[in-house]
Amino acid sequence: MEAFVKRYTEISGEFIDVEGKVKGVTKRVVIGPEQQAPNFYMRVFTLNPEGHSPFHAHDWEHEVFVLRGQGILVTHKETRLEHPLTPGDVALVPPGILHQFLNRSSQEEFEFICIVPSHGE
Amino acid sequence: MEAFVKRYTEISGEFIDVEGKVKGVTKRVVIGPEQQAPNFYMRVFTLNPEGHSPFHAHDWEHEVFVLRGQGILVTHKETRLEHPLTPGDVALVPPGILHQFLNRSSQEEFEFICIVPSHGE
Repeated sequence: MEAFVKRYTEISGEFIDVEGKVKGVTKRVVIGPEQQAPNFYMRVFTLNPEGHSPFHAHDWEHEVFVLRGQGILVTHKETRLEHPLTPGDVALVPPGILHQFLNRSSQEEFEFICIVPSHGE
Repeated sequence: MEAFVKRYTEISGEFIDVEGKVKGVTKRVVIGPEQQAPNFYMRVFTLNPEGHSPFHAHDWEHEVFVLRGQGILVTHKETRLEHPLTPGDVALVPPGILHQFLNRSSQEEFEFICIVPSHGE
């Protein structure tokens, strides 16, 4: 098996918009089953201005690196603990905690890498 | 357990230089055992101008995202297959193949994210 190398923007994405849950999200699986990644998958998420991921929890972790824009990681639905995210920030969202990624900018996209174990994709 | 958020440049690194093997490499474990990452660890490597990682193989994979500079992923020691790397490139180095990361610039740093299973750190 040879190494796989590609520009992430040349890997096609899926646009996700689910009324009341997900808004303006493009998801690219840049290293995943197609590349025969054995244990964990790398995805790149691009959130449109004012876009957001679902507020949810699951039994696997996220490891995040912020590429572009200004976003917020919200945890704890009741008290809404907000972690601002800017390019160069890393984030670990441990398994089991409620979380959401938001783009609060009305003009710029917010983009980040998010790695999950293969059973989380 | 709460989410962990930090700018990667605020996480201290280790400088690695081993005569004939590794040259001018700074390694930061940005999400790892300290953050109680359960399955895989995120590291950021900064290669000085003309720096390089060791030419080696191991039984775990690398998942890479290039942040800055111009580098080369070399695989196959005999035939030296060279994959140029620029910012925005992703790379999967599968388990078991000989590989090395090089910075051929004489002036600029080359920086990339590299994720491994926890037993590979």
